[in-house]
Amino acid sequence: MSAASQALRVAGGRREELEVIALERSHHTSYSACGIPYWIAGDVADRSALVARTAEQHRRNGIDLRMRHEAIALDLEGRKVEVRDVDSGAEFSLPYDEVVIATGAAPARPDLPGSDAAGVLGVQTLDDGARVLHWLDAMKSRRAENCRAVVVGGGYIGIEMAEAMLRHGCQVRVVDRGEEPMSTLDPDMGALVREALEKLGVAVSTGVEVRGFDTVRDEGTGPRERVRAVVTDAGTYDADVVVLGMGVVANSDLAVRAGLPTGARGGIVTDPRMAVPGHDGVWAAGDCVVSFDRVSQRRVHVALGTHANKQGRVLGTNLGGGYARFPGIVGTAASKVCELEIARTGLREIDARRAGFRYAVGTVDSTTRAGYFPDAAPITVKVLAEQGTGRLLGVQIVGYGPGSAKRIDACALALWNGMTAADLAMADLSYAPPFSPVWDPVQIAARRAAAAALG
Amino acid sequence: MSAASQALRVAGGRREELEVIALERSHHTSYSACGIPYWIAGDVADRSALVARTAEQHRRNGIDLRMRHEAIALDLEGRKVEVRDVDSGAEFSLPYDEVVIATGAAPARPDLPGSDAAGVLGVQTLDDGARVLHWLDAMKSRRAENCRAVVVGGGYIGIEMAEAMLRHGCQVRVVDRGEEPMSTLDPDMGALVREALEKLGVAVSTGVEVRGFDTVRDEGTGPRERVRAVVTDAGTYDADVVVLGMGVVANSDLAVRAGLPTGARGGIVTDPRMAVPGHDGVWAAGDCVVSFDRVSQRRVHVALGTHANKQGRVLGTNLGGGYARFPGIVGTAASKVCELEIARTGLREIDARRAGFRYAVGTVDSTTRAGYFPDAAPITVKVLAEQGTGRLLGVQIVGYGPGSAKRIDACALALWNGMTAADLAMADLSYAPPFSPVWDPVQIAARRAAAAALG
Repeated sequence: MSAASQALRVAGGRREELEVIALERSHHTSYSACGIPYWIAGDVADRSALVARTAEQHRRNGIDLRMRHEAIALDLEGRKVEVRDVDSGAEFSLPYDEVVIATGAAPARPDLPGSDAAGVLGVQTLDDGARVLHWLDAMKSRRAENCRAVVVGGGYIGIEMAEAMLRHGCQVRVVDRGEEPMSTLDPDMGALVREALEKLGVAVSTGVEVRGFDTVRDEGTGPRERVRAVVTDAGTYDADVVVLGMGVVANSDLAVRAGLPTGARGGIVTDPRMAVPGHDGVWAAGDCVVSFDRVSQRRVHVALGTHANKQGRVLGTNLGGGYARFPGIVGTAASKVCELEIARTGLREIDARRAGFRYAVGTVDSTTRAGYFPDAAPITVKVLAEQGTGRLLGVQIVGYGPGSAKRIDACALALWNGMTAADLAMADLSYAPPFSPVWDPVQIAARRAAAAALG
Repeated sequence: MSAASQALRVAGGRREELEVIALERSHHTSYSACGIPYWIAGDVADRSALVARTAEQHRRNGIDLRMRHEAIALDLEGRKVEVRDVDSGAEFSLPYDEVVIATGAAPARPDLPGSDAAGVLGVQTLDDGARVLHWLDAMKSRRAENCRAVVVGGGYIGIEMAEAMLRHGCQVRVVDRGEEPMSTLDPDMGALVREALEKLGVAVSTGVEVRGFDTVRDEGTGPRERVRAVVTDAGTYDADVVVLGMGVVANSDLAVRAGLPTGARGGIVTDPRMAVPGHDGVWAAGDCVVSFDRVSQRRVHVALGTHANKQGRVLGTNLGGGYARFPGIVGTAASKVCELEIARTGLREIDARRAGFRYAVGTVDSTTRAGYFPDAAPITVKVLAEQGTGRLLGVQIVGYGPGSAKRIDACALALWNGMTAADLAMADLSYAPPFSPVWDPVQIAARRAAAAALG
């Protein structure tokens, strides 16, 4: 919808020449999927707050938006989309001059025994969110003790959902196959997240593979069985509710069947203008594409709303007759669980090794504010720099809020510009006692990484 | 002391060859002057918390630190410093191989009638801070109503002291000669600071020139008269205490008398290694020097602890036999008054004009977090970009905490690297609902500035 809106905006006086039809198979459009865990947690009172623009608003804006219509096939030769009206089942063809694929990502949902049981829930769509809240209500009303929640996957969604479940008074366990939770960080930084989760009362089981879900017949769930435990290679965990946060893959079936090129985790390949190379008039953007990573120089699949929005705007600018390029990413992301803030940019150690870098590490335990300032909170920063050149490769931050996670933005721009760790250590970052020690923790870690890389 | 410590650290095994003598005319060394307003406000319980390293610690570290010793003259020809023992009055010569001038800055204290009265107070040193606290106690004990505080100067120190005085229950007025408070921002951004101050109950009088201080004889203050009002060209304001926050000038008398080169506001000129050019064996660092501004390409005087620390470290590295360069600054600074956070980097409109830039402006009113997230607070970001090229020239931020001010660091690194506003608008900054709207306010303002600069 970002691409559609921007195309019309850029077309300006020529917008009458542009007929924009948008197909959306669900009941909802333009909502903040990232906000769903916070809605479930109770931070956001109402799902309607997550809707950035309603279907009606899009239509008033000149977009012929067809809700509950699914694109089921793409005929590139004939320049038409095969469409199914989800409610009536009717199918028809829609001719196009230019087609934009913005099918997003789908949760990686394991094909395991019991995974379709009632109470095994995802958190990708607004309907998913409503289902989680509904299920929690039902479980809380039938159990005298605390509802037992198992979150499968200890990544961004997993830890956000762990907090949400805590806020509902659940006993919470996070199960992850990795060595530590938050596998988007190195294990030494992930261990800090584990510590924080455990302090919050969350049980953390890592190095554990989920084998399936134990279910039980239940009158409340009709013919479907209800989940009662998560079965893993390390034992069985009782569960009244299971939340799946196991990452996503590009939802690119439509593109694949049409013969379009795809890369990591099924992401569609595009050029920087968001056009699919070799296929005239075909565009793609958002969670269904791969993005160019400026640090590793590889195409990666990173499903984040911020990239999707930027790509949509770039695509729309080009479609509307303008010129714009998506410059790629450096792998920046942030999250939080209660007061703990987590952020990263660039390469982890494993990424650096895979990309063939030899690197050095600098780490510091410091505080978010001057040590003497009230509520100066612990923060750990880890910096990776290339051996020999000292060029920054990645930064990871785990610390208490406020003020830990957003420090990653300066690091992201340092990476973006190919700075060395030594340059970052001496750059003019802001200092005042309520905001930082006189040497920002990021700069101390960078200085140490520089010394290690050049020593 | 940062230079002295670093020289010994870098010298390592050769540290026995290095005899480091440090002269300090006051009773204190290595304290956070930036923390003094927060100590006065009550955020920091004890002045000892502001002391990073005591004299004793420095001595254990191998520095021959002579407290209450003042350098009164510098004989460059004879390579010796004339020293006075402040307490005994004894004078003697100290020969040197290398001399480091780190005499800091002195508050710009007006030579106005009554400025030496009791109750007209600065806040530069620990002793200043103690005097303010002592005076407030005395005033509070003798007045039935609230103590009336007038803060002269609406810059960083001024607004921090306005908060401190509020915390003591004073009626507070800030008097500034500029059009708006916070003249390190453009007036349109300063107006937001005025609004916030007024909401806090602080009276703000701008465009006002202080002419002097009305005083009264008082038994408590002995032969000195006590301040009772601030006299300005716009009227007289009753005052039980006056705090001076009128900025600083380089404390470079010693250097000037020795014939060393100085620049803006008396700052000593150095090269990037912190050596004074043309004067072998003479070094200078900290609030007494001018720094190279990478944006305007001019030497400017910016007295901030963060530059002083970095310069001290660079100087010490070079003095200890290593090699380091201070890369200059981009004019980054941050502050707060109660919940309002203020930050800036690069050039203001007036700086851009003076430096000969033609520029365009992009401004946005947004929120620190996703609009639907609890405690999403208002933030205004203003971006200046060069006309035609779109190159970033400066960024100013005024917003409520947490999370407004530290956003300046990403902007500072964008400036540092000569990025365009359009580049910044598309860069990979972190996004998650608790930390940012999906388009960071900085990026929206940058996008608008880019459009204005290139349109």
